[in-house]
Amino acid sequence: MKGMNPLAAPLDLLADFIRFPSISAQPSHAHDIRACAEWVRTLMDQIGLTAHLHETPGCPVVVGRNLHEAGRPTVLFYGHYDVQPVDPVALWKTSPFEAVVRDGMVYGRGSSDNKGQILAHLLGLAEGLRKGKLPVNVVVLVEGEEEVGSPHLAEFLSTHKEELACDIVVISDNPMVAPGIPTFTYAMRGVAALELTLRGPSHDLHSGMFGGIVANPLTELARLLGSLHDANRHIAVPGFYEGVPEPEPWERAAWSELPLAESDLLRMTGSPQLQGEAGYSTLERLWCRPTLEVNGLWGGYQGAGSKTVIPSEAHAKITCRIVPGQDAHRLLDLLRDYLVAQCPPSVRIEVELGHVGRPARMEVESPMAQAALRALRMSFGDKKPALIRDGATIPVVADFQKILGTDTLLLGLCYPDCGAHAPNESFPVANLDLGIKLNQALLREIAAEYKG
Amino acid sequence: MKGMNPLAAPLDLLADFIRFPSISAQPSHAHDIRACAEWVRTLMDQIGLTAHLHETPGCPVVVGRNLHEAGRPTVLFYGHYDVQPVDPVALWKTSPFEAVVRDGMVYGRGSSDNKGQILAHLLGLAEGLRKGKLPVNVVVLVEGEEEVGSPHLAEFLSTHKEELACDIVVISDNPMVAPGIPTFTYAMRGVAALELTLRGPSHDLHSGMFGGIVANPLTELARLLGSLHDANRHIAVPGFYEGVPEPEPWERAAWSELPLAESDLLRMTGSPQLQGEAGYSTLERLWCRPTLEVNGLWGGYQGAGSKTVIPSEAHAKITCRIVPGQDAHRLLDLLRDYLVAQCPPSVRIEVELGHVGRPARMEVESPMAQAALRALRMSFGDKKPALIRDGATIPVVADFQKILGTDTLLLGLCYPDCGAHAPNESFPVANLDLGIKLNQALLREIAAEYKG
Repeated sequence: MKGMNPLAAPLDLLADFIRFPSISAQPSHAHDIRACAEWVRTLMDQIGLTAHLHETPGCPVVVGRNLHEAGRPTVLFYGHYDVQPVDPVALWKTSPFEAVVRDGMVYGRGSSDNKGQILAHLLGLAEGLRKGKLPVNVVVLVEGEEEVGSPHLAEFLSTHKEELACDIVVISDNPMVAPGIPTFTYAMRGVAALELTLRGPSHDLHSGMFGGIVANPLTELARLLGSLHDANRHIAVPGFYEGVPEPEPWERAAWSELPLAESDLLRMTGSPQLQGEAGYSTLERLWCRPTLEVNGLWGGYQGAGSKTVIPSEAHAKITCRIVPGQDAHRLLDLLRDYLVAQCPPSVRIEVELGHVGRPARMEVESPMAQAALRALRMSFGDKKPALIRDGATIPVVADFQKILGTDTLLLGLCYPDCGAHAPNESFPVANLDLGIKLNQALLREIAAEYKG
Repeated sequence: MKGMNPLAAPLDLLADFIRFPSISAQPSHAHDIRACAEWVRTLMDQIGLTAHLHETPGCPVVVGRNLHEAGRPTVLFYGHYDVQPVDPVALWKTSPFEAVVRDGMVYGRGSSDNKGQILAHLLGLAEGLRKGKLPVNVVVLVEGEEEVGSPHLAEFLSTHKEELACDIVVISDNPMVAPGIPTFTYAMRGVAALELTLRGPSHDLHSGMFGGIVANPLTELARLLGSLHDANRHIAVPGFYEGVPEPEPWERAAWSELPLAESDLLRMTGSPQLQGEAGYSTLERLWCRPTLEVNGLWGGYQGAGSKTVIPSEAHAKITCRIVPGQDAHRLLDLLRDYLVAQCPPSVRIEVELGHVGRPARMEVESPMAQAALRALRMSFGDKKPALIRDGATIPVVADFQKILGTDTLLLGLCYPDCGAHAPNESFPVANLDLGIKLNQALLREIAAEYKG
């Protein structure tokens, strides 16, 4: 890194980082995963951290640290070097693994999620280290299985608990509310999954020979799923809203000021119009209300033309987004009980409970959050940071809380329409430098808060 | 056919007929289709009919006739030599195209549908011709595309209208009510198909990033399909029951005597329990009430595990069975209008109207029906024939009515559980001989009726 030009190099480094097709979901890319992990370790070494590549039963975890000193806070930066698959490739305007800059955005798989964002922090640390020593103890943990659900991370955190002990975790892996608006995300929803199967006749039946005398599993499934929301789009499962707090007045006030209009959300989703639970604003529905979504639904004949069949089975996949205050396992039990109770005896029902990811919330008034808010304000030209929640789930946040006992600062640097997981993923070029600044300001403010 | 042993030969001939894998749905069997058509033509020749193989844009039609004389009625026997595919082959206990007799049933693809049944009529004519001349003019039409919806039959009937002119059509291609019960089927349901697509977001959305603010097409589709029946399982589409007559008292009386118990229908369907429209008996629901069935339903993620997606599209295939008195096109219009009216503006709806097959009904008091009833009684040991409807559709019945102006006698010779279209299709060996007797009795009774 000697002789690195701090104005030119970040984008070149990001291009190098993007060049690895580090797709964790596809075993054929195991070699690329390892090469990418080695690249991250080498970069950490070059900027002055002590870095190791740790083997796991899956993809390696890279951990770097500066020289820790007593009497200083320890900050753990978390990121991931793995990326989503690139299908459908035909929809990419340029090659997914060749970074291209157009209109201030760098395009490429992983540019936002998460290579651009974790690189900004690494380059922030690089600048800090170039100037002298960092004001805090730092651990940087970059894993390679985030896109497949981090199956080995909790185990890794447990076995390296001492080494990873810290006062705060920092993650930049989610979007800012809008371009140019420094954003502090203080809560995320969790997730709870369930799969549902209805079985009627023992075999597919001719709809002429038997239509009218037996239950059709597809019709029964439609009735069942159709009963999950009432006319106001409240979820009709008894007890579903237990423990869900109403949005607080300061949240309502903060969100009403955000430069995120319904027209922006219409554009981003491409929906004919917005729709949701009555009695709540769009952002309230997105950030602090639980949801129940059918993610997949199938049964019977899906080919060309028609087939006059009463199918023997019908299937649905459901996930709920849950909010801080709700218990994922309790909620899945309630949902299962409701589905079983609603199901008529003319079909047999099977409910399989799936994975859960806990919701997370950080106290905005806490010293670490206040330090982050000051750092955001400084880095973005004295603009007041937006206080938002996020409707999605970062399950590792709950792991850090549970295993290391540490809260997480969520300081997203990408935009909502950066296309994470989609073709033509992009990252704002300017946010590389803003991220570098933010990293340094953050360390200063955390150090100051700790002393103060 | 000289020297044919009338007791042994029918089964051998059926085995020969079954040996052709005359699967009209699979182009790779075009050669087998043609060979099978030739075999039928040759058989007609050998038994003393004058037979021709007629080319169509699809599979050939075989037509045979005796020497027609003025002053006699003309009876057209319709059947088909094509069969359904044999998938799933693994479920067949013996090879689909090698006839095997077990427990009084001959097993093989097409044994019931329709080779066994049309062969019984051909062998009935053979016996009649061996004894002298037939008492009526006969046309036998055996087509090769019934299992793919007879796409060229209406055109063939139109262009050969003079040659095919007749007083009555006879079809044995449906089940008897139960073994040993001669059965006269005086009505069949029709069918009307429709496909439905809902489009919400312009692309699949992340259920965390956007869940709660847009309509989920799968949820909306479930609500829409769930609204098609009310709590009593009446179809909720306004006007749906226009023109549907209540079952007549004599029908209710006749059906209550039938040896077709709910336990039989439970066994045949393998459903946990029977279910249908309130206020009607099981057989009324099956035979004289319209239905609306979802035949296929799909959208979103169907793979292993879960994918937290709000899909952009949802699809359903629907068919209605309609009864004599209903107009298929009017009904599809009503259904489309209802679906469009019920659909919320948060998703876009597309409705594609599909094929229709008209319902059919024969007057039981008509001379031809009475002749058939006498013939059935005679052939089945003086047993009183059951008067039933059929819930399924034979679209050619409506074609014969429309193009030739002729009613159809439906005189099924297979059983409800013969497994037409399913693995291990079978046909009762004894019904070959009963069919041969029935054919001769029918011609005598029709001739007598015509004179009388």
